[in-house]
Amino acid sequence: MTLRRIRKGHRLGDRYVRIFRPTAGKFEQDEENRLVATEAVFDQPAGLRRYFEHIWRFVVGARLSSAMEAHERLGVIKGLAVFASDNISSSAYATEEIMRVLVLAGAGALMLTMPITIAIVVVLVVVVTSYQQTIRAYPTGGGSYIVASDNLGPVPGLVAAASLLTDYVLTVAVSVAAGVAALTSIFPALFDERVILSVGFVLLICLGNLRGIRESGTIFAAPAYLYLVAIFGLLGYGLFRYASGSLPEYTAPEEWGAPEGATTLGVLLILRAFSSGSVALTGVEAVSNGVPAFTPPEAKHAQRVLLLMGGFFLTIFLGMSFLAGQIGILPDPTEQTTVISQLTSALVGGGSPYHYLVQISTALLLILAANTAYSDFPRLSSILARDGYWPRQFQYRGDRLAFTTGIFVLTLLAGALLVVFSASVTSLIPLYTVGVFIAFTLSQGGMVRHWWNLRTTDRGWWRRAAVNAVGALATGVVALVVGVAKFALGAWMVLILVPILMALMMAIHRHYRGVQAALTLDEVPEFPRVEAPQVVVPVSRLDYAAYRAVRFAQSISPAVTAVHVSESAAEAAAMQARWDAWDSGVELVIVESPYRSLLPPLLAYIDAVRATEGDRPVVVVVAEFVPRYFWQNFLHNQAALRLKVHLLSRPNVIVANVPSHFGEATRRIRETPEESSAESDRLA
Amino acid sequence: MTLRRIRKGHRLGDRYVRIFRPTAGKFEQDEENRLVATEAVFDQPAGLRRYFEHIWRFVVGARLSSAMEAHERLGVIKGLAVFASDNISSSAYATEEIMRVLVLAGAGALMLTMPITIAIVVVLVVVVTSYQQTIRAYPTGGGSYIVASDNLGPVPGLVAAASLLTDYVLTVAVSVAAGVAALTSIFPALFDERVILSVGFVLLICLGNLRGIRESGTIFAAPAYLYLVAIFGLLGYGLFRYASGSLPEYTAPEEWGAPEGATTLGVLLILRAFSSGSVALTGVEAVSNGVPAFTPPEAKHAQRVLLLMGGFFLTIFLGMSFLAGQIGILPDPTEQTTVISQLTSALVGGGSPYHYLVQISTALLLILAANTAYSDFPRLSSILARDGYWPRQFQYRGDRLAFTTGIFVLTLLAGALLVVFSASVTSLIPLYTVGVFIAFTLSQGGMVRHWWNLRTTDRGWWRRAAVNAVGALATGVVALVVGVAKFALGAWMVLILVPILMALMMAIHRHYRGVQAALTLDEVPEFPRVEAPQVVVPVSRLDYAAYRAVRFAQSISPAVTAVHVSESAAEAAAMQARWDAWDSGVELVIVESPYRSLLPPLLAYIDAVRATEGDRPVVVVVAEFVPRYFWQNFLHNQAALRLKVHLLSRPNVIVANVPSHFGEATRRIRETPEESSAESDRLA
Repeated sequence: MTLRRIRKGHRLGDRYVRIFRPTAGKFEQDEENRLVATEAVFDQPAGLRRYFEHIWRFVVGARLSSAMEAHERLGVIKGLAVFASDNISSSAYATEEIMRVLVLAGAGALMLTMPITIAIVVVLVVVVTSYQQTIRAYPTGGGSYIVASDNLGPVPGLVAAASLLTDYVLTVAVSVAAGVAALTSIFPALFDERVILSVGFVLLICLGNLRGIRESGTIFAAPAYLYLVAIFGLLGYGLFRYASGSLPEYTAPEEWGAPEGATTLGVLLILRAFSSGSVALTGVEAVSNGVPAFTPPEAKHAQRVLLLMGGFFLTIFLGMSFLAGQIGILPDPTEQTTVISQLTSALVGGGSPYHYLVQISTALLLILAANTAYSDFPRLSSILARDGYWPRQFQYRGDRLAFTTGIFVLTLLAGALLVVFSASVTSLIPLYTVGVFIAFTLSQGGMVRHWWNLRTTDRGWWRRAAVNAVGALATGVVALVVGVAKFALGAWMVLILVPILMALMMAIHRHYRGVQAALTLDEVPEFPRVEAPQVVVPVSRLDYAAYRAVRFAQSISPAVTAVHVSESAAEAAAMQARWDAWDSGVELVIVESPYRSLLPPLLAYIDAVRATEGDRPVVVVVAEFVPRYFWQNFLHNQAALRLKVHLLSRPNVIVANVPSHFGEATRRIRETPEESSAESDRLA
Repeated sequence: MTLRRIRKGHRLGDRYVRIFRPTAGKFEQDEENRLVATEAVFDQPAGLRRYFEHIWRFVVGARLSSAMEAHERLGVIKGLAVFASDNISSSAYATEEIMRVLVLAGAGALMLTMPITIAIVVVLVVVVTSYQQTIRAYPTGGGSYIVASDNLGPVPGLVAAASLLTDYVLTVAVSVAAGVAALTSIFPALFDERVILSVGFVLLICLGNLRGIRESGTIFAAPAYLYLVAIFGLLGYGLFRYASGSLPEYTAPEEWGAPEGATTLGVLLILRAFSSGSVALTGVEAVSNGVPAFTPPEAKHAQRVLLLMGGFFLTIFLGMSFLAGQIGILPDPTEQTTVISQLTSALVGGGSPYHYLVQISTALLLILAANTAYSDFPRLSSILARDGYWPRQFQYRGDRLAFTTGIFVLTLLAGALLVVFSASVTSLIPLYTVGVFIAFTLSQGGMVRHWWNLRTTDRGWWRRAAVNAVGALATGVVALVVGVAKFALGAWMVLILVPILMALMMAIHRHYRGVQAALTLDEVPEFPRVEAPQVVVPVSRLDYAAYRAVRFAQSISPAVTAVHVSESAAEAAAMQARWDAWDSGVELVIVESPYRSLLPPLLAYIDAVRATEGDRPVVVVVAEFVPRYFWQNFLHNQAALRLKVHLLSRPNVIVANVPSHFGEATRRIRETPEESSAESDRLA
């Protein structure tokens, strides 16, 4: 066989050595019948394609082989930047979200900021603790989808998956929009360009992710750590001033007026404040979803990142709420200055370099929080694709080991969302959070079941189950509170979208399963001798293309008929005469078409042949002319293309495309074999 | 062979009668190996397609067989409506165009209206006379393109063709826009919808033309004759009043003021007035272009239509200019009332029913003048396509014998023009006329050459040549005058577009000629015994689709290799084991792909096989899964599709598509042949 010939080339001397040339360097011989492709298989012939290939490699970097996978993993430092920026960035606005609700009941109600912060931190601790357990139990990646479907069944799994996919898209849109809003509040001139800016940032993040997870970690680590340094410096300085009793005086701008207290401070308001603040918990899920992206030991590194993330976050959150309360900061009713900006102004002076540092690093971190979703969305999509709930394309990793399809789709959706909502945080944020807490609840619930299943082998199962049960309860209550409090503001869209996505996933799953059932062979098939197929060759003119088609047909079967569709009897007679002169040994059937159409009579004839053949396949040999430039296709092949589309839907019809290439190629075939082979190398 | 089997069916009884069923009624047997398709080949299976087919047939009418061609021709009555409406409709504004220019030199200059009208009528008579000669000389259709390329060579022919194609598109846009403007001047409420209205009218005319030329003649005859009746009534009444000395007094509305006479009356102004009025000659070409569309004797009928057209037109034109001069009508400087409307108001009273009749019939005729271009553009395109200067698709006649592609393309271009220029006559009209006169000049010049060539056989050649020489001179001068006078206003666009179109036509021609040179067989080819091809079967999983692909490969050649691209060594080993269990007798080559890509290693492998095979074709058998619904393709076949696209550019590679159909089809194949055949009928 071919391979053997290629190998024999070396032994048999000149003829086979020459033949071996085009493969040179493209494959390494492993063992008999086993080749390993080298990077040379990607080589493009000189020209536009190679040029684009160069540009693309420059943008996303050199190809990575699968063996590099372990090297592409993340350590704790980069892992924190990749998986925690979403969560940590929430600290930039969580305090403010609580205060905004409380202040509706007057300035006095703001004293509840700290207790509510503590309550949320408690939930956070519960959730982080539960997820520590999840990571240990699912060291190969335990996102909500996996945990829920593993323990509660496929439907809860899909609820979690649909909620999370929705949420990841929203994460990208919201955090980029928030980051751009932070930027435009320092540089108001950019405000009119915010949609373009936002989409631009999304594209940049997309490109970074196409370079692969490790490089995107490198790119995105700096802003995350810059934010941590800036904010810890601020909080440390603030706490020092507090300890030394020298906290500055703060008075809100007069034009804000005194907060009126339109509402009385009741349980409902407190719940709303709590649900607004619980945006702080978004992004916690990211780490446990991404365990396989860490360097080994994966679970240990992931746990450490989760702990660090929780620690950093709660320190910033508590410190921020505490200092805001001590200084007596009021949320800006015009929404132009953030609480964090006021705090910085009060402590180090507005417009000082440090103030700019805090603002810019916050803006960058918010934008890069989108990157967490860029790790999660493609990964979850790939898992769903593996399980047959999502189109298969999401499963393949590109040449930088990133899940390219997921990255592109996320970019497209988030970009569309930003354009549709004009990059407005206010319009986007109510859609957010509810999905995260649905997923949390299902994941925690799944973990309770998980421990219950292990009750016979694991002594401490009830302790672990209790932790997750508390987590499930806490997050379930939050999900309910958020869903109700934000329903009218936009959460309803998510609550409609999730079932639609689930239905889509189920339809896809049903389809793939049906296909598999139809295609899977239950037993080893038999291979008795097969008869050659019946071959039909449509011919329009008796030219070189038709000649090649007929020759090919003769080479694969003795049962060949040519068929010609004719517009008139005169043309038919002329065709018959020319055909007889060819004396090919193939019979010609002429179908006259009084309505001039080529296709319907041809299809009807092929159907008639199919009917006579029963199970024996009918091969239709289509002569196709391949022009030199793509645009020239417009001048050819319309009939061939339409014929092929129609034949595709006919069972037992096999279409064989015999191409005739324009110019060099055609001439080549007519030349002697010796010359032709060199030509073929050049064209390959 | 197949056909023989089908025929034998009747003789051999049960088995073959059953087999014959699907063809029942689809073909008539003509003679041995000769079938005639009946209309039944168009039958669609029940479902969406048949539904659309019904709608389409309702819209455009039943299919017409080629034998109906002669019945689809036009007599003098309908021919006048189809081919003359463009020209006759010019009479609605030609007088006004002259007056508009003259009035720039003051009201006194308007006395030159009648002499200029007479000058244009003289040119018209010359042109009509020349075209009478053209029709006699080219009874199979003598448009400018044919006459110019026949006698002056291909380049002048293409200049004429490009000018005319441009002009036809402009004719549609201008006349529909003018008609809509006439309508909106009676119904001002429609003014804001003029773009939608215009595009709507273009679509209606398009539909009418899709019904075939004869039916579009029927549809469009009424408005043309309505206009003639209305306008002749008006002119007759006016001349009667003139003869009886009772012409009404006319005073222009005071707010127009007295025409100032900003310019002095010089030769240049007179030439400009003449060139504006010469818009009257557009559309004369139509008749000689469309000779084959007349009932036999085609030339005689065409000549009669041309004479009638010229007669009607010059009567209206002269009458209008004469009466306008006698009554002393001034052109409305605000461009809101047309001269024809003022004339009607003066004679029969503004707002009278007759005034409405004149206005509405004018509007309708202007809109339907577009129909002339709908006869010419597709016909000229088909001639250019036949000569290889234009994409081949323009050559085919649809199932109503109309040149469908040309009709669609004209609709698209004219619609786009109307949208881009907001259906504004003022912006569109300067682009107009120059192309027509270029084509006229070339056609007349060609005729001079034509008679010169015939000088030895035709005694009266010099008389005929003189007529055409006068025509060429007259139209050439007009072309020059128009081109200069309107250059800055937009004629430059046409003068740029024409060379671009010519370059495109030449490129297309060069391409088709190159293709023909490459494909044409100079001698009768030989058919020695051919070796079976080398077959490569890419397999991804060992399922039913792969089984069918391998079985097919075995049926066409003994030289088959399966090739599997594997992501990892482990997967490769597993594949090898399963393959060995199949024991198909086919060798498997496994290509490991460390960069995960499927395509490049596969292509490199196929290239290696090609290189070993030399001239022997390599068949790549691609197993393709055909899902039940179109959208499901999104879930499959990405790899197969991309493989096929890449293989298309490789000489000597033949792709054979082995489809596996979802559900019923797949099951069918597994069932017994007896059952399967019934199923196949149902699916066919």
